[in-house]
Amino acid sequence: MAELFHEIDHCVTAPQGFRAGTTACGIKSDAGIKDLAILVSDVPCTVAGVFTTHNLRAAPVLLCQERLQDGQGQAVVVNSGNANCATGEQGLHNAYRMTELAATKLGLAPELIFCSSTGIIGRQLPMKKLEAGIPQIELSPEYGDAFAEAIMTTDTRPKRLALEFEIEGQAVRLGGVTKGAGMIRPNMATMLSYLTTDVAVERAWLQQELRDAVNDSYNMVSVDGDMSTNDTCLIFANGLAGNTPLNAQHPDAETFRQALRYITRYLAREMARDGEGATKLQTIYVRGARDKADAVLAARSLTRSPLWQCALAGGDPNWGRIAAAAGSSGCEFDQNAFDIFIGETQIAAKGMAIDYDQDQAHAAMAGDEVLITIDLHLGNGEATAWGCDLTHGYIDENSLYTR
Amino acid sequence: MAELFHEIDHCVTAPQGFRAGTTACGIKSDAGIKDLAILVSDVPCTVAGVFTTHNLRAAPVLLCQERLQDGQGQAVVVNSGNANCATGEQGLHNAYRMTELAATKLGLAPELIFCSSTGIIGRQLPMKKLEAGIPQIELSPEYGDAFAEAIMTTDTRPKRLALEFEIEGQAVRLGGVTKGAGMIRPNMATMLSYLTTDVAVERAWLQQELRDAVNDSYNMVSVDGDMSTNDTCLIFANGLAGNTPLNAQHPDAETFRQALRYITRYLAREMARDGEGATKLQTIYVRGARDKADAVLAARSLTRSPLWQCALAGGDPNWGRIAAAAGSSGCEFDQNAFDIFIGETQIAAKGMAIDYDQDQAHAAMAGDEVLITIDLHLGNGEATAWGCDLTHGYIDENSLYTR
Repeated sequence: MAELFHEIDHCVTAPQGFRAGTTACGIKSDAGIKDLAILVSDVPCTVAGVFTTHNLRAAPVLLCQERLQDGQGQAVVVNSGNANCATGEQGLHNAYRMTELAATKLGLAPELIFCSSTGIIGRQLPMKKLEAGIPQIELSPEYGDAFAEAIMTTDTRPKRLALEFEIEGQAVRLGGVTKGAGMIRPNMATMLSYLTTDVAVERAWLQQELRDAVNDSYNMVSVDGDMSTNDTCLIFANGLAGNTPLNAQHPDAETFRQALRYITRYLAREMARDGEGATKLQTIYVRGARDKADAVLAARSLTRSPLWQCALAGGDPNWGRIAAAAGSSGCEFDQNAFDIFIGETQIAAKGMAIDYDQDQAHAAMAGDEVLITIDLHLGNGEATAWGCDLTHGYIDENSLYTR
Repeated sequence: MAELFHEIDHCVTAPQGFRAGTTACGIKSDAGIKDLAILVSDVPCTVAGVFTTHNLRAAPVLLCQERLQDGQGQAVVVNSGNANCATGEQGLHNAYRMTELAATKLGLAPELIFCSSTGIIGRQLPMKKLEAGIPQIELSPEYGDAFAEAIMTTDTRPKRLALEFEIEGQAVRLGGVTKGAGMIRPNMATMLSYLTTDVAVERAWLQQELRDAVNDSYNMVSVDGDMSTNDTCLIFANGLAGNTPLNAQHPDAETFRQALRYITRYLAREMARDGEGATKLQTIYVRGARDKADAVLAARSLTRSPLWQCALAGGDPNWGRIAAAAGSSGCEFDQNAFDIFIGETQIAAKGMAIDYDQDQAHAAMAGDEVLITIDLHLGNGEATAWGCDLTHGYIDENSLYTR
């Protein structure tokens, strides 16, 4: 990566022409916590998006999907603390109203504004708080990091990154933020992600590249196997770099693709690492699957097995649970063929335990990053998934309840 | 049920001609804990069976599936503490050897003996302990309850039931035991269940009825969404009641079917109630689904949603998590149509929150049995699933680890 691009500050406001701003409008119960944010470009952008495949889709997702048909946009307004989901016609009306409020604030047409909501399901948005909050938001190219903070729910830290690289010999930028934490599984799930770039990109190619990047990154993250109703990933390309718009034939297309993949995979890993209650990041690498789809099944299966997630929490190299999760994933599986590695240590060969160095295996389970490799010995399919362990912290986060 | 059949003692040894026996042979680390058991009929039985659909199937499952092709059997030998899974050729050899040891003990042909193992995956069976233990087992018609105990792993109590009812005007019996606790999800999963009856039953009909009963009972239980490698449900019908063998045309077929369904549903509920770390039994009733398959998807989805299981643990009537789990289950789902009830209290109508009696809803969440009803308003499909909450206890059971 060192040759192609380098990391810079300000995440989503790093590319030229983007500003962000936040405020605490009181949707979250704790007073003073940022819960409302705007990200805006100085000029209209080409926009691409990927959304939850959930059958219960929140109102802002429905709005985004409708507005994405034009492929144009200039801003997004986001609140945390309330998902505006399972809120019926009133919820849809409120989502549109939210973009109108932002449009007035920004002096733009509402059709250029997207919106997202994340938080509790089944309650109407407190519109008075939004009406009071949106006009107060102060926008600046310095506030990308504040934007990353304002969209958090149970995240313990913001997730953000920006890269600088060259297109047509000129320095350009790509920035990104995500929020995650709970209700995370493929596909996506209580995940919001916004990406910005000053590179000019053709819309159809941008949509295809975003879809592919999300499939290999956000869609490979699971915290608890629960799928969300509000997943949204949007990319805004404002073209201020002045390059010939990128498409598959552009000589620098691959550079942009690599930057997009680097950012989305980085943010995916950070979401898994910061899963609710997580103390360990696990990376599951499956190879030798019949095909890629099978590798994806097997890799994801481990990230959403509570039994294995508990073993991970306890630092227990219980490879039987790894084999059981992979074997029940629906992938083609030969129970006399698979190998399993924990870190660099091979634990099982041809479906059976081998004499392995127990100290090495325990050391590989003890850190805050654990790598599991499964070789199914059935073909050339490979995939990587990320997840975390299952701890008391996850349960406390999701079960402690006061009326 | 009162009219058709009544409960009696001794579970699997309640039907005439069945004996059981147990011993502590030292497979489980705690000395003196029963871990080896035999169940035998005085005469050969018609046998039917249902097994895990896992791609990693334990050696005893492979043995049972092979021997079931004859549809004849007379005994089963079971050990707990070691699953004999992911053990390759040696494991298969050991499973056969286990039945040979039981055959010698019982004076029967090995082909009439089935076997099961449950416990840790990936270690070879300690055959010396089995060789020493099996001959020591003392068999008696009184030891059905001891058998239920010896097959437990992390279960906190045995699960057992026997019913007496009439076939052709004569009193007959059907008994059953299960073990469950963790790694439980549809289909079946670390679940062993043995059923015995003195009723004569035609083999094909017995297999069909067992399959149907299991689909509506054991296959509707989830503790943690993890599927097991060792699931086995066997029914032994020894025919000592002397009736004309039951088939679909027999006038008393329905009585037997109801008894079989009553026992399997009772044992399924008891497994969910005794899930690892469980403090609450949840029953999920889905109606109004497009069809039964859709109802099954939606009902199971709740029993394996960690987010909802945490809310259940906390007594939180967080219906958004119910809707989110059902909506992501893959069933047909109209987000503006569904109703949700907690206990008798309707919480959501047409996909939105309604003004409900909060005290009632909280009371319905507070007990050790919680009923959730979801009406999808799309058709006539219905299904019931059982599960439990997710607590620190589950994590402790599965993550506390000492080398």
